Amino acid sequence: MGVSGCGKSTIGNLLAKELNIPFFDGDDFHPESNIKKMSNGQALNDDDRQGWLETLNNLAKKQIKNNSCVIVCSALKQKYRDTLSFGIKNQTKWIHLTGTFDQIYKRMQNRANHFMPSALLKTQFETLENPENAISIDISLTPEQIIKKIKQNIMKTSEFGLFGLGVMGKSLCRNLANNGFKISMFNRHVNEVEVDVAKNFKAQYPELSQAEAFDDISEFVNSLQQPRRIMLMVNAGKTIDYVIEDLLPHLSENDIIIDGGNSNYKKTKERYDYLKSKGIHFIGTGVSGGEEGALKGPSIMPSGDKEAYNKVAPFLETIAAKDKNGLPCCTYVGPKGSGQFIKMVHNGVEYVEMQLLAEVTTILETLGQNPDEISQTLESFKNDASSYLLEITTDIFKKKEGDDWLVKKILDKAGNKGTGNWTTIASAELGVPSTLISSALFSRYISFYKEERLQLNSIFNFENTSKLSVTTNEVLEAYQFARIVNHYQGFKLIAEASEKFQWNLNLSEIARIWTNGCIIRSTLMEELVSVFKETTNILTNKELVNKLKKFKPSTKKVVSECLLKDLTTPALSEAIQFFNGITTAYASANVIQAQRDYFGAHTYLRLDDDSATPHHTNWNLN
Amino acid sequence: MGVSGCGKSTIGNLLAKELNIPFFDGDDFHPESNIKKMSNGQALNDDDRQGWLETLNNLAKKQIKNNSCVIVCSALKQKYRDTLSFGIKNQTKWIHLTGTFDQIYKRMQNRANHFMPSALLKTQFETLENPENAISIDISLTPEQIIKKIKQNIMKTSEFGLFGLGVMGKSLCRNLANNGFKISMFNRHVNEVEVDVAKNFKAQYPELSQAEAFDDISEFVNSLQQPRRIMLMVNAGKTIDYVIEDLLPHLSENDIIIDGGNSNYKKTKERYDYLKSKGIHFIGTGVSGGEEGALKGPSIMPSGDKEAYNKVAPFLETIAAKDKNGLPCCTYVGPKGSGQFIKMVHNGVEYVEMQLLAEVTTILETLGQNPDEISQTLESFKNDASSYLLEITTDIFKKKEGDDWLVKKILDKAGNKGTGNWTTIASAELGVPSTLISSALFSRYISFYKEERLQLNSIFNFENTSKLSVTTNEVLEAYQFARIVNHYQGFKLIAEASEKFQWNLNLSEIARIWTNGCIIRSTLMEELVSVFKETTNILTNKELVNKLKKFKPSTKKVVSECLLKDLTTPALSEAIQFFNGITTAYASANVIQAQRDYFGAHTYLRLDDDSATPHHTNWNLN
Repeated sequence: MGVSGCGKSTIGNLLAKELNIPFFDGDDFHPESNIKKMSNGQALNDDDRQGWLETLNNLAKKQIKNNSCVIVCSALKQKYRDTLSFGIKNQTKWIHLTGTFDQIYKRMQNRANHFMPSALLKTQFETLENPENAISIDISLTPEQIIKKIKQNIMKTSEFGLFGLGVMGKSLCRNLANNGFKISMFNRHVNEVEVDVAKNFKAQYPELSQAEAFDDISEFVNSLQQPRRIMLMVNAGKTIDYVIEDLLPHLSENDIIIDGGNSNYKKTKERYDYLKSKGIHFIGTGVSGGEEGALKGPSIMPSGDKEAYNKVAPFLETIAAKDKNGLPCCTYVGPKGSGQFIKMVHNGVEYVEMQLLAEVTTILETLGQNPDEISQTLESFKNDASSYLLEITTDIFKKKEGDDWLVKKILDKAGNKGTGNWTTIASAELGVPSTLISSALFSRYISFYKEERLQLNSIFNFENTSKLSVTTNEVLEAYQFARIVNHYQGFKLIAEASEKFQWNLNLSEIARIWTNGCIIRSTLMEELVSVFKETTNILTNKELVNKLKKFKPSTKKVVSECLLKDLTTPALSEAIQFFNGITTAYASANVIQAQRDYFGAHTYLRLDDDSATPHHTNWNLN
Repeated sequence: MGVSGCGKSTIGNLLAKELNIPFFDGDDFHPESNIKKMSNGQALNDDDRQGWLETLNNLAKKQIKNNSCVIVCSALKQKYRDTLSFGIKNQTKWIHLTGTFDQIYKRMQNRANHFMPSALLKTQFETLENPENAISIDISLTPEQIIKKIKQNIMKTSEFGLFGLGVMGKSLCRNLANNGFKISMFNRHVNEVEVDVAKNFKAQYPELSQAEAFDDISEFVNSLQQPRRIMLMVNAGKTIDYVIEDLLPHLSENDIIIDGGNSNYKKTKERYDYLKSKGIHFIGTGVSGGEEGALKGPSIMPSGDKEAYNKVAPFLETIAAKDKNGLPCCTYVGPKGSGQFIKMVHNGVEYVEMQLLAEVTTILETLGQNPDEISQTLESFKNDASSYLLEITTDIFKKKEGDDWLVKKILDKAGNKGTGNWTTIASAELGVPSTLISSALFSRYISFYKEERLQLNSIFNFENTSKLSVTTNEVLEAYQFARIVNHYQGFKLIAEASEKFQWNLNLSEIARIWTNGCIIRSTLMEELVSVFKETTNILTNKELVNKLKKFKPSTKKVVSECLLKDLTTPALSEAIQFFNGITTAYASANVIQAQRDYFGAHTYLRLDDDSATPHHTNWNLN
């Protein structure tokens, strides 16, 4: 493609010979009426072109069945190109011969036998809509150089690059390859530590036979079709910035970098802006599902430019898990940073779901159940509260090592990798009371003070003698109650961020892509997909209201019983405290406002004054 | 002062005439033995000088009783100057005549009648320790110019500048003036909004008659003695940076800026580094006590360079509140940022103390007490749990408006100004479970969702019919229990930050400066001063252990009763949950570690393996 006079026919002919495939000049297929019009110095209109373009499209479709072909055609507008490649979009490669007006005008004047007068060239330049997906070649090169460049470019068959072959990166590579995508894989070389990682990985799995393996950044980048799609699966944090700096010198305008790590959403925003200034698109995406999810279908939460998303959507949506209707658990989330934000909240909700199960199983243990019995009880919970995390916890309590249960042998210090504390920080910053997430986070922190716990335990030395008086069904109801509150809080945080950052997020779609592939998939999440079609506040949904009303008595009983018998249940306890707080019409905050006004003259508003006038009182002058 | 040959005698004579006060040449007071030694070309040693310096010190002391005088003396070392100004440090003004070796050597050669050979000049320069508190004057100026400069400088009588005359700034000005300090006060001019603020403020209070009032930055800065001490009392945040930029062009090396606002400790670190690069000292200090405290004696928490602190200590320690032993509630806290950090935690602890009182009074109200009765109950708590916040809450519940109590008319939406959420953020970042602070913060956030609370209240519509069955003594004990946990958490956060940032903070000293002047002063804080002399963990202190053991049953009863009767008590509840968590020998975190290993291959440690080897299990292959 290219404006008249750019040298399409010459180059097309040479290319076809070089590749040993048929050559067709589009102009040869014009109907008589078009040729006449052009000869009279009249420009064609779009109606004149439509039939002709369809003829060329049919020609291409026919050719592509056997082998391939070279067709030259000016194809100045995107809609012409859409017609030309209709039905064969992914198999069409566009080559755009580019030059300046002066360059081409000079050439035109030397070509007496061409039927288009040079005077129309200006119109051609005005009409030209630069293609985004084409290989652009400068016509000032020699024909030999041009042919060489085109060959180099179309020989590149890798459609998608994956940078960083850790656990998640490897699983995503296999997932992409299993779905028929041609990929390039990169892992850095570190003497004696990371040697031939990509090559060895490729050798390990038959599905990677078509994949290319690299440990040289330049070769990796050059193996990719343009615009390049490079997904980073490296450690979040400073590493991402280093990798971006390493990649930048090798990239071209409109290439796309996808960060699939748990990056902080604020950093993702900064990186987006930085890369935009360099002409590179940046997609930040949450990926949830762990090693297995990444391999078989994760939940994917991409954000950034919509147009850039469209170019990676075929890959991400194909490898994503599918919801119960067969739709991909991958959707365009929203503007820069929003994908990483909702992944962060996803992980916050996950912290709470895990903590609740830890508390539930501790209660069951205190009720005298051994791990097998706990596993059976959890199994029975599946009818009412099925979730991935419940399933794996059921497995965990079954697992034996010799005669004993493995779970009992694990050191009780919980790790955390950043997203849980970021969620708490985001809540604090945005003014949203995500009490359960901070409770789950702090429970992990408390667990980390193992030595101090042992010391204090020996000092205080409380003995638990009286029996816990709750039923497993009450425990189940308390668990369900707390889970609803957890999901309310998580989505509340997302909704508030969406409003503050003007992200315009779709809560129902977010719930939908979390119904499969991710760690917090559950039947409750399935319910929320439709609940969020009606409301942004799930506590106003009739079914959930009824459930909360039904489960509340059990929750009160379980939490108070545990409290009286010295059993620690911070998340279950906070669930009911929060629920009471958010359903209290007149809270005790009036006392706090009075105190603040007393010592700091911070003023207060009055119930009987709608004008929002601040009042101040000299409280100590009675 | 200055090296031999700098022109001390000439300038000193001129200055004495100009100021109409006596002149003394130090050299005239040398004993015979010294003069002989110098005439022989021998340098004096420090023993030779001691008696002579004491003679001059006595001379100065005698003179100062009547009027003043000019004494010239080389005074090259700090210890000579210390002897010379012994007992009259604050009344002594040092003027240092400075020049290069070459400059002075040339002068020396033109002075035949002086008894010190020029050869000793080099030794003089080697001996010279540059004074930090002197007015430095370049000897290349003419004598007339030098005299003018000195006069300008010693006429400046303002010792301390206060920038920003808001509620706190004004109170600090009056406090400084009441303590006899000569101050300069600045407030910006904003057309029609802030006009003649400083001038009008000065006119309003007789104690400010000696203070100078400005709305021009340059005049304000120039009115201050060097090194200048300028305390900023402006809004925290970006404003501080703008003010610093406005001040910088007018400042001189070694001037000191004190930020007395609630700045974020990370920002304070950055500002310290920035100003250090400009040769300016930066002291970040927490100031607590509200309007009244600032006026009558606040608690002050300065941090930064120790030497810079020493120069502002006479001011800050004088205006600070005094502890029960009469010592100032102001101490050098530690390196850059630490003062702002402990102020932030102070405010976090304050949030919790306020929230606990809000919960306690709500319980008392539910028990059927009217505000007067609540006030009486709180009054009775003072014997066991006296604190400033308890006192003001006692006042608040007494306050009537007409026939009704004012507290009942306040809108129940609590404000917050940053430090509470910073404390929660710092906890999350540092890995410290400050659960009560986040609970108090989130309670304020929940209160802010007033409209949603009303909506949900009407949807859920729980009716409280059954009576709360707790005694006021049980409430008092639960309150005391939660307060101990609150103080444990607050100081834990400080201790962890101190370790992480290598601040080497003194917890006992911090508790001591919080025993008066600040919002969280209390008898418990008094106790902690000595507790922290023995341990960094108050939960290992015998008296406190016994109290917690004694109060725990009431706490369990109060929290569970409230829970069963639908009363919201998040902080009281969290206090017991946290206490149970931190005293649990084997926590439920093993379940979480198993889950993390299951879905993310995060590995786990084992109880029976001390080698800290990470283990991984394929949990789902049973």
